Amino acid sequence: MTRTDLLNEILSSVRSGKMPVEEAMQRLRSLSYEDLGFAKIDHDRSLRAGFPEVVFCEGKTPEQVVEILKRLCARHPTVMATRAAPEVYESVRREVPKAHYHETPRMITVQSHARKVRKASDRTDKNYILVVSAGTADIPVAEEAAVTAETMGSRVERVYDVGVAGLHRLLDQKEKLEAAKVLIVVAGMEGALPSVVGGLVSKPVIAVPTSVGYGASFEGLAALLSMLNSCAEGVAVVNIDNGFGAGYFAHLINR
Amino acid sequence: MTRTDLLNEILSSVRSGKMPVEEAMQRLRSLSYEDLGFAKIDHDRSLRAGFPEVVFCEGKTPEQVVEILKRLCARHPTVMATRAAPEVYESVRREVPKAHYHETPRMITVQSHARKVRKASDRTDKNYILVVSAGTADIPVAEEAAVTAETMGSRVERVYDVGVAGLHRLLDQKEKLEAAKVLIVVAGMEGALPSVVGGLVSKPVIAVPTSVGYGASFEGLAALLSMLNSCAEGVAVVNIDNGFGAGYFAHLINR
Amino acid sequence: MTRTDLLNEILSSVRSGKMPVEEAMQRLRSLSYEDLGFAKIDHDRSLRAGFPEVVFCEGKTPEQVVEILKRLCARHPTVMATRAAPEVYESVRREVPKAHYHETPRMITVQSHARKVRKASDRTDKNYILVVSAGTADIPVAEEAAVTAETMGSRVERVYDVGVAGLHRLLDQKEKLEAAKVLIVVAGMEGALPSVVGGLVSKPVIAVPTSVGYGASFEGLAALLSMLNSCAEGVAVVNIDNGFGAGYFAHLINR
Amino acid sequence: MTRTDLLNEILSSVRSGKMPVEEAMQRLRSLSYEDLGFAKIDHDRSLRAGFPEVVFCEGKTPEQVVEILKRLCARHPTVMATRAAPEVYESVRREVPKAHYHETPRMITVQSHARKVRKASDRTDKNYILVVSAGTADIPVAEEAAVTAETMGSRVERVYDVGVAGLHRLLDQKEKLEAAKVLIVVAGMEGALPSVVGGLVSKPVIAVPTSVGYGASFEGLAALLSMLNSCAEGVAVVNIDNGFGAGYFAHLINR
Amino acid sequence: MTRTDLLNEILSSVRSGKMPVEEAMQRLRSLSYEDLGFAKIDHDRSLRAGFPEVVFCEGKTPEQVVEILKRLCARHPTVMATRAAPEVYESVRREVPKAHYHETPRMITVQSHARKVRKASDRTDKNYILVVSAGTADIPVAEEAAVTAETMGSRVERVYDVGVAGLHRLLDQKEKLEAAKVLIVVAGMEGALPSVVGGLVSKPVIAVPTSVGYGASFEGLAALLSMLNSCAEGVAVVNIDNGFGAGYFAHLINR
Amino acid sequence: MTRTDLLNEILSSVRSGKMPVEEAMQRLRSLSYEDLGFAKIDHDRSLRAGFPEVVFCEGKTPEQVVEILKRLCARHPTVMATRAAPEVYESVRREVPKAHYHETPRMITVQSHARKVRKASDRTDKNYILVVSAGTADIPVAEEAAVTAETMGSRVERVYDVGVAGLHRLLDQKEKLEAAKVLIVVAGMEGALPSVVGGLVSKPVIAVPTSVGYGASFEGLAALLSMLNSCAEGVAVVNIDNGFGAGYFAHLINR
Amino acid sequence: MTRTDLLNEILSSVRSGKMPVEEAMQRLRSLSYEDLGFAKIDHDRSLRAGFPEVVFCEGKTPEQVVEILKRLCARHPTVMATRAAPEVYESVRREVPKAHYHETPRMITVQSHARKVRKASDRTDKNYILVVSAGTADIPVAEEAAVTAETMGSRVERVYDVGVAGLHRLLDQKEKLEAAKVLIVVAGMEGALPSVVGGLVSKPVIAVPTSVGYGASFEGLAALLSMLNSCAEGVAVVNIDNGFGAGYFAHLINR
Amino acid sequence: MTRTDLLNEILSSVRSGKMPVEEAMQRLRSLSYEDLGFAKIDHDRSLRAGFPEVVFCEGKTPEQVVEILKRLCARHPTVMATRAAPEVYESVRREVPKAHYHETPRMITVQSHARKVRKASDRTDKNYILVVSAGTADIPVAEEAAVTAETMGSRVERVYDVGVAGLHRLLDQKEKLEAAKVLIVVAGMEGALPSVVGGLVSKPVIAVPTSVGYGASFEGLAALLSMLNSCAEGVAVVNIDNGFGAGYFAHLINR
Repeated sequence: MTRTDLLNEILSSVRSGKMPVEEAMQRLRSLSYEDLGFAKIDHDRSLRAGFPEVVFCEGKTPEQVVEILKRLCARHPTVMATRAAPEVYESVRREVPKAHYHETPRMITVQSHARKVRKASDRTDKNYILVVSAGTADIPVAEEAAVTAETMGSRVERVYDVGVAGLHRLLDQKEKLEAAKVLIVVAGMEGALPSVVGGLVSKPVIAVPTSVGYGASFEGLAALLSMLNSCAEGVAVVNIDNGFGAGYFAHLINR
Repeated sequence: MTRTDLLNEILSSVRSGKMPVEEAMQRLRSLSYEDLGFAKIDHDRSLRAGFPEVVFCEGKTPEQVVEILKRLCARHPTVMATRAAPEVYESVRREVPKAHYHETPRMITVQSHARKVRKASDRTDKNYILVVSAGTADIPVAEEAAVTAETMGSRVERVYDVGVAGLHRLLDQKEKLEAAKVLIVVAGMEGALPSVVGGLVSKPVIAVPTSVGYGASFEGLAALLSMLNSCAEGVAVVNIDNGFGAGYFAHLINR
Repeated sequence: MTRTDLLNEILSSVRSGKMPVEEAMQRLRSLSYEDLGFAKIDHDRSLRAGFPEVVFCEGKTPEQVVEILKRLCARHPTVMATRAAPEVYESVRREVPKAHYHETPRMITVQSHARKVRKASDRTDKNYILVVSAGTADIPVAEEAAVTAETMGSRVERVYDVGVAGLHRLLDQKEKLEAAKVLIVVAGMEGALPSVVGGLVSKPVIAVPTSVGYGASFEGLAALLSMLNSCAEGVAVVNIDNGFGAGYFAHLINR
Repeated sequence: MTRTDLLNEILSSVRSGKMPVEEAMQRLRSLSYEDLGFAKIDHDRSLRAGFPEVVFCEGKTPEQVVEILKRLCARHPTVMATRAAPEVYESVRREVPKAHYHETPRMITVQSHARKVRKASDRTDKNYILVVSAGTADIPVAEEAAVTAETMGSRVERVYDVGVAGLHRLLDQKEKLEAAKVLIVVAGMEGALPSVVGGLVSKPVIAVPTSVGYGASFEGLAALLSMLNSCAEGVAVVNIDNGFGAGYFAHLINR
Repeated sequence: MTRTDLLNEILSSVRSGKMPVEEAMQRLRSLSYEDLGFAKIDHDRSLRAGFPEVVFCEGKTPEQVVEILKRLCARHPTVMATRAAPEVYESVRREVPKAHYHETPRMITVQSHARKVRKASDRTDKNYILVVSAGTADIPVAEEAAVTAETMGSRVERVYDVGVAGLHRLLDQKEKLEAAKVLIVVAGMEGALPSVVGGLVSKPVIAVPTSVGYGASFEGLAALLSMLNSCAEGVAVVNIDNGFGAGYFAHLINR
Repeated sequence: MTRTDLLNEILSSVRSGKMPVEEAMQRLRSLSYEDLGFAKIDHDRSLRAGFPEVVFCEGKTPEQVVEILKRLCARHPTVMATRAAPEVYESVRREVPKAHYHETPRMITVQSHARKVRKASDRTDKNYILVVSAGTADIPVAEEAAVTAETMGSRVERVYDVGVAGLHRLLDQKEKLEAAKVLIVVAGMEGALPSVVGGLVSKPVIAVPTSVGYGASFEGLAALLSMLNSCAEGVAVVNIDNGFGAGYFAHLINR
Repeated sequence: MTRTDLLNEILSSVRSGKMPVEEAMQRLRSLSYEDLGFAKIDHDRSLRAGFPEVVFCEGKTPEQVVEILKRLCARHPTVMATRAAPEVYESVRREVPKAHYHETPRMITVQSHARKVRKASDRTDKNYILVVSAGTADIPVAEEAAVTAETMGSRVERVYDVGVAGLHRLLDQKEKLEAAKVLIVVAGMEGALPSVVGGLVSKPVIAVPTSVGYGASFEGLAALLSMLNSCAEGVAVVNIDNGFGAGYFAHLINR
Repeated sequence: MTRTDLLNEILSSVRSGKMPVEEAMQRLRSLSYEDLGFAKIDHDRSLRAGFPEVVFCEGKTPEQVVEILKRLCARHPTVMATRAAPEVYESVRREVPKAHYHETPRMITVQSHARKVRKASDRTDKNYILVVSAGTADIPVAEEAAVTAETMGSRVERVYDVGVAGLHRLLDQKEKLEAAKVLIVVAGMEGALPSVVGGLVSKPVIAVPTSVGYGASFEGLAALLSMLNSCAEGVAVVNIDNGFGAGYFAHLINR
């Protein structure tokens, strides 16, 4: 039942006198968000935009995550949770059996209905997001971006371990780079890959710095600054290790 | 004459023996970029993508800027220069009479041919970029974004001085916010505006921190960090005061 | 027995010759503070101002905390300890049976006499402090502020999980915001909430940055800088995660 | 004419059919703020709260400052402008003859009506704000705080040059410290004064770090961090050199 | 046997032909330092100056610490080791039975000969070093300073938990402060104590910032910057938590 | 079989029609790098330059490290892995029996063929790299540099624990310093050693800051900045704790 | 007339009834400090300790400096002003004819009485402070230290331009280094000199980082961190460019 | 006259009794360095190594620069001065007529004898240093490197304006890159070029970050961190804008 249907039903009941105004107010408000005390679950936005609802697990207790996910699954066909430790998933799947765990990006996705997460193998969609990673250690962040965009409904292609120190590995993928509608480029250490990719294509490049590195990488600061100062045109940046944000932003462009 | 025509001509001349291979090599290379010694002007990319070519004036002498602009104008219908001090413009307009100066964003644009820069008043295009600024002092950066996107061919709308401390000014513009295809949000000081705007729309938001502020704003660092940590989904960030980068990125999405 | 009574008694004894001057000096000094070697417990200030005495547990051994609390409870009707790990509480309650543990903010409170800590349900006081938190993960810091102010004697109301990315959740609480005498606004990540709240009310807003976030939040630095640069008038800031400081400061204004 | 009167008039005209709905909409909106293009002047808030309206001059052209001040003075009895260079004042006073310039804090105040700015000599009000400065070089920031609070209507007392290296100068003022309702403590360099003052009184202390210092003061960072980490209870902090913010916040507590 | 005696013996043997030049060279060099491969133990300096030799344990394996201490004890009457974890001490005392462990500052001292470490109770020496600490949590660093100076032979007095938020606790000790020849002031958080102490005495004050604090204390950075910017004359600073350095420096002045 | 031989074979097969073009393309590409999905192993560069191939283990799972090492060992006579935890080595040696573990620098080296890693004892080569370390705690980084250069084929000499506070230990080694072709100088804390060494020799000095230190060393930042600002000519710097990078760079100069 | 004499006179007058108590209170207070409104001049401390009084000119107007100096000179035989621009001196000497300007350290000294500032040529005092500078550009800071200590009455010797990159220049001065009672070592860039000097002597070394350098020296931060992390024992640090603080501290030790 | 000749002469004179020992000592010492009071000119090192002597002009008065250059030119065939403002050169050339000014890198070189600075056109030397710059604004720093190495006697080739955003401009120069013996790569903004170049060649790459950029480049910090974290092997880094250091280091490798 869509939000519009619900609205119709409530308002009709009010007009017909079947539902008192106070009750209608209460239900309309809960259409918009649900108040659990420790959290106010925002149903409105995702219903309107057709996006899955997302839970950021860090800083929440497993009990809080489970409670929020249950409420969301009751209303939304697709729900995601990011930064979910394996223990959190253990708690979740007892209560939400359809929950699926993605180990590398540590994400939980729940598809209540028939629509499946797109896989990279689903190549019927001409428009796709290309996720590029500089090194093997950047893959968890890259996968967070990829799984996010796929769960939202975008086709995603992946090109991993093509750091700038071995340029031929990247140049070999030039066709794939040029055919993408939007690119996500994930890199730690010196974070130079988005500049190089940005110079090769004329599509939006979303740069994701990672905390991969040591010493003067200062937990991803070096890569972040590098990407913010990119001399290539058409590059924008998200927070360090924020694969989710990049996947979400890319889907907004791609859909 | 397009790049394809030029290529055809050169290759035909080689086949017919009219042009020696060495000369052809030289001309083909210069199709791609022109070497001035202090600069290698990249003609290839903009010709291919149909984008105007851009010169960043800081750190270049007026003579260098003039020389580069002259070469670019010889081949490209539209050319831009950013961060151009009034003195630089004085030097430029003596040699490039069609050059136009935008005082607030300190930009030079040259439109060699008929196509004009779009104005916000040109509202026939349903797809537009909305440039939002938090304060009056952020307007020069906002205008750099707006003029860049307009010069590239996008319709741009502006909403200025709607900082988060007076939320009703922003909420009054909700229709304009929702109807935009992509938004550029420019803010200094605490840089909170992109998070608020990002929560109101489900379109890509490009956040531009500015160096407006004092004390612990640390020349825009506070706004930059704020924007990178935005709790709103769908926000990506460019460098401090980088209106040009935001305008360019927005146009890539909007076209 | 109040400080004034004690003073009277000592001075009378001196005058009557019952107490030698040296002993009186010693006792008068200990009225003011008690020297445990590793700590000089300051009795004077809280007796004078009627505030509970507070122990910051970090960096102290459980034995030191127990010893200090015992001395304080011997003289003060209300005592608090902040940043108390569960193990510390275990040690404390063996020696101080009236000690109560608040799990979420990890605080210990001891009410020796009849006066109870106010609860939010105690709504007879027109003047109240409103504690607002941006996200679920900020609640431990928000609760430290709330429990501190309640233990000191203020009425406290709570509004949690109303971050700026879902503005309607906050605007729904506008009446509660406007009726408060002073507000404490707790937020991590980009720390934008105090600016938005500060723009909605004309009361003092105490902003508390939290270390909630990742990457370029730099353990709360982003939120801290954001709040210091707030464009809203009437905002002052305390240290990262310093819920106690905010609660104390708010009570000073509210009483 | 108050805002309520205006509202009454407009709504009456609509009901009587004298004013079309569109015109009423337009006028109601402008009651709230006025749109100059480069600025949206917020009349609503100050009218409602009875506070003077404030213009931050940095980053605005003199023409913009003059235009905004003229609009504000047309509706508000008291208007302030901060960080106004002498040149800006020169432009202002040609158009706003009642404008008064405070040289030390570089502020402009305009009192359109009879109510005068309180002076420290006006000692009839028992409640006062005490502004304390550590050094002579901190006085411009201290004066910004003092003039702000006075312009808003608070009684202000001043104690200057009582830095912690000469404690007796401060302790001599203990009575004045204790009698204040709220204190503003301004210090650069190591910023230790608010901790010492906070330990002497049981009133709210607003700490203002200044950029006074050199070397490892890093333009006020040392003082800022010092104040945020104050071991004294009851201290909150505003931005470096933000005398205005401290004065405003203090007045909110004091009124 | 002193270094001079050894030199005499070696050189006499060379002159008399009893010792070949190569052997003499080897022995002379080892007089100066001993090469263990992983460490070059410097005997020369401490023999000459009469100071105990010091081993910094962090970053060394327990085996390395034991080996170095054994070599040092073979030649020096007094040896110290700082930052020694309890496990390191366990390894040490098996091989160096005279080793004594100081739990609070985590130091090992070895007094091979009769001369004992001075205790604070040894008050026959008019010249003494006063170690002052701001809080209870600063005591481990303060004790590192105190034990270092005592082991080197200075009389040390202690005044702990006299932070600036309760000034009367400090002022009560004014006589002790004024009578000291040199003062070590240890403080975390805002690090204001050295400025206040520096203003009360006209003796050299060695300021030791500690990592005690949280949030914007940034592991002692706030206290460090505060102390470097001290407005009091006669204050110099050592590294964060460097009690040893302060104790050593103070002894150089005091002896 | 060398790369040239392989190329010859493939191309001959294509010409003779024995190998289809597609297969040849595939094999040629894999000559250059091998795609494992999570990694693209770059064979080309090391084959061409004769260098061992290197695996950085941090951020890779043990399974990934094992897989990459097996592929590399199948084609390269010498393979190295850096930052390998003992557990990683346990996994590796089960599959790669020739793997050798260097405990101090936590490296794995595999020499498939007869050529052995040079030892410092192999002193037939006049050209050598000298690795100098300031303290005992810097040795793991120094050994990473030394083992890297030795594995690549350079003669390496070592001088350890010659920090600037005991200059005579360093000056004693002056001949060894002057005879080296290139020097690697490893130091934590204040990082002063490269400046002093750089002043003693007229050879390239590669400075390696280490994270050895505490407090204001900020995990090696102090040493890094110190080395970047060296007043001695002929000093270049690598990342904090990057012994591998220094060893590699030194070998490029030395060979 | 000394402070003791003044006290005697005042108290005698009170006892004899010649001076009312109120007047005595007033005069006694002004013995201690004088209140100019913008400054509270502290006479007490310097009179008691026999030190010259010091004015830090930065952030004060020339008028304020002149006024303060005149008051000080009326009571103190020796007065200093630091960071005095030539223009400030011009204002000063009109009102204080005995004022002497030191161009290199930009200091003003006033010797009202016969006692002259010691010169380095005055070598009758066995105890001296040695000021060592690393480079020519560090001399202004070194001179601030030297002139300060000389004005306070210490003998000062100078050794300039002996940076660590040319160690023989320093080692040539070893006798002078060893004979000093306390050393001030001034260095910019990598700030390594105090560690080297600290290793050569067993006297207190006061390290002064300077802002000399560029790039990653970050205005003296590199030198500051270097000095704080000195591996040499017996080194303490003052603020960047704080020659005055070093000279003052050294005199406290030396006298 | 070489140093050896001078030594011979002096020692002969001593043996023959013509020169007293004291005078010989004096002259021998001045062979090594000359003491001007404000500077100790180091003649020894450059004479021994055959390198030109270098003066860093920043922080020195024009008079000091002139004096030092005159002394150096009296003994050395080649002398350089870096960071010389045009005014400094004006002062120099009056006293040192052979001085030549390089405007772009702001350097002075003096060739007293016949040997000329090599020019890039001098291509007889197979070994050369290649200086690569990312952008036009980086050229002053690149030229400082090039002129330094040329003045020392190396052949230098230049490739300018080949930033990573237009990779084909760089790849076109691949032969030149591969044939160089050592490469200097100069880049501002994100500083990605050294990583890309390092991946293309197997020669030492000296990376020079420049302060070119704005906003989050933080005066070259972004480029510096980027280069320190280079994922390419064989990259070492010098200070921001330190073209001189790179040129010197490259010459040490190249000669």
